[in-house]
Amino acid sequence: MQERFFSSKNLRFLLYDVHDADSLTRLPHYRDHDRETFDLVLDAAARLAKDLFLPCRVEMDRNQPEYERGTVRVHPAVREILRQGGEGGWISADFPYDHGGQQLPVTVCTATRFIFLAGNYSAAVYAGLTTAAARLITSFGAQELIETYVPKMLSGAWQGTMALTEPQAGSSLSDVKTRAVEDGAGFYRIQGQKIFISAGEHDAADNIIHLALARIPGSPVGVKGISLFLVPKLRFAAGGGLEPNDVHCTGIYHKLGYRGAPITQLSFGEEGDCRGYLVGERNRGLAHMFQMMNEERLEVGMGAAALSSAAYYASLSYALERPQGRPLASKDPSQPQVPIIQHPDVRRMLLFQRAVVEGSLCLILQCAKYADLARSGQDEEKERAAELLDLLTPIAKTYPSEMGILSTSQGLQILGGYGYCDEFPLEQLFRDTRIHPIHEGTTGIQGIDLLGRKVRINQGKAFELFLQRARAAVGEVRGDRALDPYARRLEQALETLEDVTSHLYRVAGGAQEILLADATLYLELFGIVTIAWQWLLQGVSVRRRLAGNPGESDRNFLEGKWRTLQYFFHYELPKVQGLAQRLREADGLTVHMGAEHFED
Amino acid sequence: MQERFFSSKNLRFLLYDVHDADSLTRLPHYRDHDRETFDLVLDAAARLAKDLFLPCRVEMDRNQPEYERGTVRVHPAVREILRQGGEGGWISADFPYDHGGQQLPVTVCTATRFIFLAGNYSAAVYAGLTTAAARLITSFGAQELIETYVPKMLSGAWQGTMALTEPQAGSSLSDVKTRAVEDGAGFYRIQGQKIFISAGEHDAADNIIHLALARIPGSPVGVKGISLFLVPKLRFAAGGGLEPNDVHCTGIYHKLGYRGAPITQLSFGEEGDCRGYLVGERNRGLAHMFQMMNEERLEVGMGAAALSSAAYYASLSYALERPQGRPLASKDPSQPQVPIIQHPDVRRMLLFQRAVVEGSLCLILQCAKYADLARSGQDEEKERAAELLDLLTPIAKTYPSEMGILSTSQGLQILGGYGYCDEFPLEQLFRDTRIHPIHEGTTGIQGIDLLGRKVRINQGKAFELFLQRARAAVGEVRGDRALDPYARRLEQALETLEDVTSHLYRVAGGAQEILLADATLYLELFGIVTIAWQWLLQGVSVRRRLAGNPGESDRNFLEGKWRTLQYFFHYELPKVQGLAQRLREADGLTVHMGAEHFED
Repeated sequence: MQERFFSSKNLRFLLYDVHDADSLTRLPHYRDHDRETFDLVLDAAARLAKDLFLPCRVEMDRNQPEYERGTVRVHPAVREILRQGGEGGWISADFPYDHGGQQLPVTVCTATRFIFLAGNYSAAVYAGLTTAAARLITSFGAQELIETYVPKMLSGAWQGTMALTEPQAGSSLSDVKTRAVEDGAGFYRIQGQKIFISAGEHDAADNIIHLALARIPGSPVGVKGISLFLVPKLRFAAGGGLEPNDVHCTGIYHKLGYRGAPITQLSFGEEGDCRGYLVGERNRGLAHMFQMMNEERLEVGMGAAALSSAAYYASLSYALERPQGRPLASKDPSQPQVPIIQHPDVRRMLLFQRAVVEGSLCLILQCAKYADLARSGQDEEKERAAELLDLLTPIAKTYPSEMGILSTSQGLQILGGYGYCDEFPLEQLFRDTRIHPIHEGTTGIQGIDLLGRKVRINQGKAFELFLQRARAAVGEVRGDRALDPYARRLEQALETLEDVTSHLYRVAGGAQEILLADATLYLELFGIVTIAWQWLLQGVSVRRRLAGNPGESDRNFLEGKWRTLQYFFHYELPKVQGLAQRLREADGLTVHMGAEHFED
Repeated sequence: MQERFFSSKNLRFLLYDVHDADSLTRLPHYRDHDRETFDLVLDAAARLAKDLFLPCRVEMDRNQPEYERGTVRVHPAVREILRQGGEGGWISADFPYDHGGQQLPVTVCTATRFIFLAGNYSAAVYAGLTTAAARLITSFGAQELIETYVPKMLSGAWQGTMALTEPQAGSSLSDVKTRAVEDGAGFYRIQGQKIFISAGEHDAADNIIHLALARIPGSPVGVKGISLFLVPKLRFAAGGGLEPNDVHCTGIYHKLGYRGAPITQLSFGEEGDCRGYLVGERNRGLAHMFQMMNEERLEVGMGAAALSSAAYYASLSYALERPQGRPLASKDPSQPQVPIIQHPDVRRMLLFQRAVVEGSLCLILQCAKYADLARSGQDEEKERAAELLDLLTPIAKTYPSEMGILSTSQGLQILGGYGYCDEFPLEQLFRDTRIHPIHEGTTGIQGIDLLGRKVRINQGKAFELFLQRARAAVGEVRGDRALDPYARRLEQALETLEDVTSHLYRVAGGAQEILLADATLYLELFGIVTIAWQWLLQGVSVRRRLAGNPGESDRNFLEGKWRTLQYFFHYELPKVQGLAQRLREADGLTVHMGAEHFED
């Protein structure tokens, strides 16, 4: 039997019923498209994921990339995946026509990326990086850079990367010290070390284009002195063709999971001959890079949701087939055993997985729609969408990532001992998904970003907007008998969130350390409330569709979704209480203690 | 630098200050011992763990057991570990003198087992199984069986196992169908398959002694028709020496972690010539086996706490040394970076790890002390201890196991990208510890055992006893300014637990499925409350010791422990609220839904 890894029905339900993706075709930018195009694109993505991505998932895990004298050998399927990604227009799908793209909505492309990531997370990462890197060049690069590099990247022949992290700096980007010295001939000489660079070197692409942060001598210290450079592995030689650009891969990491993609250590300019090209303005590099970082943060959230989806369907299929035990109400051992899905505790675990998968994906598509509106919408809605997207990015990155660990772990649990063994996919998915709270900004950093910056930007305008949107959803279902109890629960949770937020600012005064000590818990609370909002939106669509007397298969899907909504409101939302209690204390327990208290 | 994996100071604090292990030497059974012996034993265990267990932890993970034509090759260190385990008296330490043991208290042996498991979980499992299997034989076996098998097992030459699970039955033991046909010559002919048998075959022992469940033809169906057999891999030949007993290892599992120990598939009696010896009474096999199962359940909880301990000290040492970023209050990028332990969010994660490690270990030692009193105590206290041990076993198994996944995951998070790589120990520990909610009865099964059986045995006598003990701890610290706020929090949580328990029974009426639908959440709630009790007990000892004006190192340890207690009460205990809210609903959401609701 073909292994299932996502639900096409659910994806379409979220796209069309909940988030009204059709409405995007009314925007001038997307006027050439209609739902039929979208469906064709989704079908093609599903075929590709099934035929090309999924079949090599286990193989790519068991045959990790190998480092050998400066190069990295990856699974041969990667080259084919990149080739088809270019040829089929997947890498460039949401680029405008004039950059060779198909001008598809971000929302639809996000749905296709979700399918690929669910089929084979590692394999889908390569092209995702290239897309975001190419977009960064088109956004801020000079016309010549765009023309020289972007077409090759979008064709799948050249790999794009994001080269931020350095050994001495880690997450502390103000400590980046790679140097970029202007040469006068239109380029900079780059010198420095980068670590943890995904796809920073491999043999499935003909060239690698690094988008790297570096410091021009004389620039201010800290983040205000960082510039963005395009640093190719191979550069154009004076006499034509390509020549080495003094970029060296010095090693790769052996990782818990996510083994199909190499994470590399890079050295720029060991021989003093590494050329980089300034992208955008001097000393504005970090601000520019945030475009790619934010795009990648959503991609990480999506990757986590996708792995959770693959885990959910693997657990579900096991639970439907594996006979074991008997109902508690009739334990007669002479009767045959029942499939374990008959046990309420197994159903609870499945509902948890489904609640995480469908709640996370709903939020990610919500963010994608905001990205569409922010990019191509009109007037006030354009600005609002940008603000909401900015506010929700840390949540869309973190909720799926943190909950993905738990939901994949529950999925593994459903299989019992088999879940722990490599004959079933759960153990790999459990290893793969553990990367997500780490890369593209750890959960701790996302929490500080949300509570320390995002909720108070423009006097809290984005936060206010979020509350308005969620309360509007509450208001719309008032009086609907089925939905009203859940609307009330969401309303209460929104009050709690608002109250906790203002309480924290009041108690902390100006003391940042007190304010942010429990920012991770704040992010968790905000995440649960946000997903509750997304579940209420799904509930509205469920009731509407059920009222239309759907066929049996749709009815099962919708009734199941309704129970998943109930699960979320009855089992997940109550977690807000404990979190709120702790956050209201804001007693600085972790602030007012020394390293010596960990000694003995 | 030698890698640290546990705290000797903490272990002694829990043993002597909190649980008053000295008092055990007043029991006649332990009258030969004193604290000096205990300390010598602990020191010797620490040396052995450091010199023998820890050095091969990574190697055993990277060189998994290999299956080859019926035998399983394991790491050569295992034979040496078993040899020293026998020679040093570790395998038999808590056996009575007349079985060749040292008659050491279970409490002290538990502490030594914790040290071994923290040093190398897989390596420590072999001997632990042998100890429990040998005890099962001495408890229920005929004198001849004891004399024939137990000395060889306690010497480390022969391995013991626990052979319950079968392919068609899994956790459903009533479906065990291995057959045992009486031969008339003092043995039974055994025929059947067993799966997931830890250390069921390997080349580090000269023989393997399986304690296996099987069914004698004509016995009642279900669990009341199961008997316990000793089934050796090699049996005594008529002419002297050993000969094969028609026991075949048919394969091993490739696992996520816990890779140093083989988990095997076994086939008994393929050639009709496998002899087994009845242990205890016919058809009472499962009841007998529960002795070993319960011992192993505590061992699993301890293994989880031990892995969490190794993870905690690895994270702590990284956090103390790794410079990155600056305090939020002074982010001047021209200043040097600070070690990450200076960041409150990192301290929060470390406190979480420490709270789990020290809370779990405290409960496990509490249970070990109950085991001592149940085995060797006097009069009423003997009976009470047995009841409390029985009640708390599912919690002592599950809390460390479930929280171990989370705390090891947080430990990995502290290392950022490095946590995900195999140059640091966190990724292995994260893989290793994932087994614990699965083996020796899944978390779901423990929940049903606790809520469905343990809390109502003897009209809830054990539960009542537990509440009395915890409330006595609350009562004792009333009026102590530092402890009183925490005593109050525990008191409230105990009320919640009591209220939820009776509420569930009331609402469910006789409907087992409604009662037990959320038994896993009930177990989680009960676990948090139990650990809060153990933290309050630790708090009492902390205040007492601090009042005695300790030296600087002890003071740091005690102040750190106090903050960990605060962490537990401020961050962990509030989780009870959300759990209680859900449990009080008892709406049967997961009961009243069909498999079709997972279709689409």
